[in-house]
Amino acid sequence: MTGLGTGRVTLVGGGPGDEGLLTIAGARALADADVVLYDRLAPHTKLDVLAPNALLIDVGKQPGHHPVSQRGIEARMIAHAEAGAHVVRLKGGDPFVFGRGGEEVIACTAAGIAVTVIPGVTSAISVPAAAGIPLTHRDVSRLFTVVSGHAPLSEAELGHLAGLGGTIVVLMGVGTLPTLTQGLLRHGARADLPVAVIERGYSSTQRTTISRLDAIVTDAAVAEVESPAVLVIGDVVRLSHLAACAGLAELRYDAAGPDGR
Amino acid sequence: MTGLGTGRVTLVGGGPGDEGLLTIAGARALADADVVLYDRLAPHTKLDVLAPNALLIDVGKQPGHHPVSQRGIEARMIAHAEAGAHVVRLKGGDPFVFGRGGEEVIACTAAGIAVTVIPGVTSAISVPAAAGIPLTHRDVSRLFTVVSGHAPLSEAELGHLAGLGGTIVVLMGVGTLPTLTQGLLRHGARADLPVAVIERGYSSTQRTTISRLDAIVTDAAVAEVESPAVLVIGDVVRLSHLAACAGLAELRYDAAGPDGR
Repeated sequence: MTGLGTGRVTLVGGGPGDEGLLTIAGARALADADVVLYDRLAPHTKLDVLAPNALLIDVGKQPGHHPVSQRGIEARMIAHAEAGAHVVRLKGGDPFVFGRGGEEVIACTAAGIAVTVIPGVTSAISVPAAAGIPLTHRDVSRLFTVVSGHAPLSEAELGHLAGLGGTIVVLMGVGTLPTLTQGLLRHGARADLPVAVIERGYSSTQRTTISRLDAIVTDAAVAEVESPAVLVIGDVVRLSHLAACAGLAELRYDAAGPDGR
Repeated sequence: MTGLGTGRVTLVGGGPGDEGLLTIAGARALADADVVLYDRLAPHTKLDVLAPNALLIDVGKQPGHHPVSQRGIEARMIAHAEAGAHVVRLKGGDPFVFGRGGEEVIACTAAGIAVTVIPGVTSAISVPAAAGIPLTHRDVSRLFTVVSGHAPLSEAELGHLAGLGGTIVVLMGVGTLPTLTQGLLRHGARADLPVAVIERGYSSTQRTTISRLDAIVTDAAVAEVESPAVLVIGDVVRLSHLAACAGLAELRYDAAGPDGR
């Protein structure tokens, strides 16, 4: 700690949970931290090693519980920085993807606290990768949309999402899976569109359930799928080495095209 | 090098260019590499330090040039692995976001070569962050779509993208910027929708140009905007500390909502 008036805040994207997927800059910030406020989904099992000099504060939210409110987190972050500390706010994934990082930057700035953002490896991309699913693939998908399943989508959003094509990734979507799949089907999405649900990405108990848009709700219920999980909807799911087990037709790979590109 | 038959390939997402945004696992793979095949946009200035024992091969594609074809890259990757090398294929951003990583995994698997994917910090999220722009923000944007500007979007895609709302991120989109903006406007996107173009993210010459959907083509031409650049379209652009300079109304931040969440 370097004394009053010199405190600052660093928002660190901790990645999807595997310590190896923390960035070098994120690890450096943790090593230098006086205080770490960490989330439930942030990689926190090795914080005593990664941030050996820091006061570690768990502000994680369990689903349905709110141990520390967003306003409370911001207040503590600012108070420690005002007392002169280098405060690291460690989040799962990336701070600017459903991480409320923007709100925390604004809160710090309004309080006159210097704040830096270190992006992270987002779960939206890396958890599908852990199941062998690329979000884009030539001739299969050239765009992807990331949504939060926290609240149901509007009819207009469902309609455009169903029509847009490409890959749909849903974070925090286990609870609203029935609403989402029914909505997409109602708006003309293909019933046989492949869906993957990847639970506990990068943990030793990672599990992938693969099905079709019209069957995933039943299959997820049978498998007793739980949060946290990342959902992927789209033909790229067929590229996973796990797809064959689910009875999906394997995508043929045409090497590099007739022109050799 | 450990001898014939024990070679393998690791696809590493190198992040947006800043060496600090490489992952710990990515750095470990490089340190262990016998051969590194790297792209133009991969962080390669410090490869002699990061991969001290490796043969370094530049397979980068300049726009309009193709020094090594995709098929050629895959062939070299496989040949070195077959000769017993640990081959690291280092890419900019994330290997599974417009990185053709899926194709390279399939090529390795078809050749009987073990292949691992280490996700990276994607430019689609981190370059906007470097300009102070979060892709999602409460009450502003709760979803985002990432597209490649490499080829123009179809009318159907433009229509659904314009209607979907949220944030649109375009990679490799400088060349097709006029087509994209005209297409979105034709399909009813707001003329005053903020647009940011961030050139050379995380370099010492990073530059952000902010404008509106109906004026960005002119403003980008005046500023002589060049590739590589990341485009962000949506109201989240107004959250950037740079937005005020562009005459955009600043977004009011309502702290943490009436319920304190």
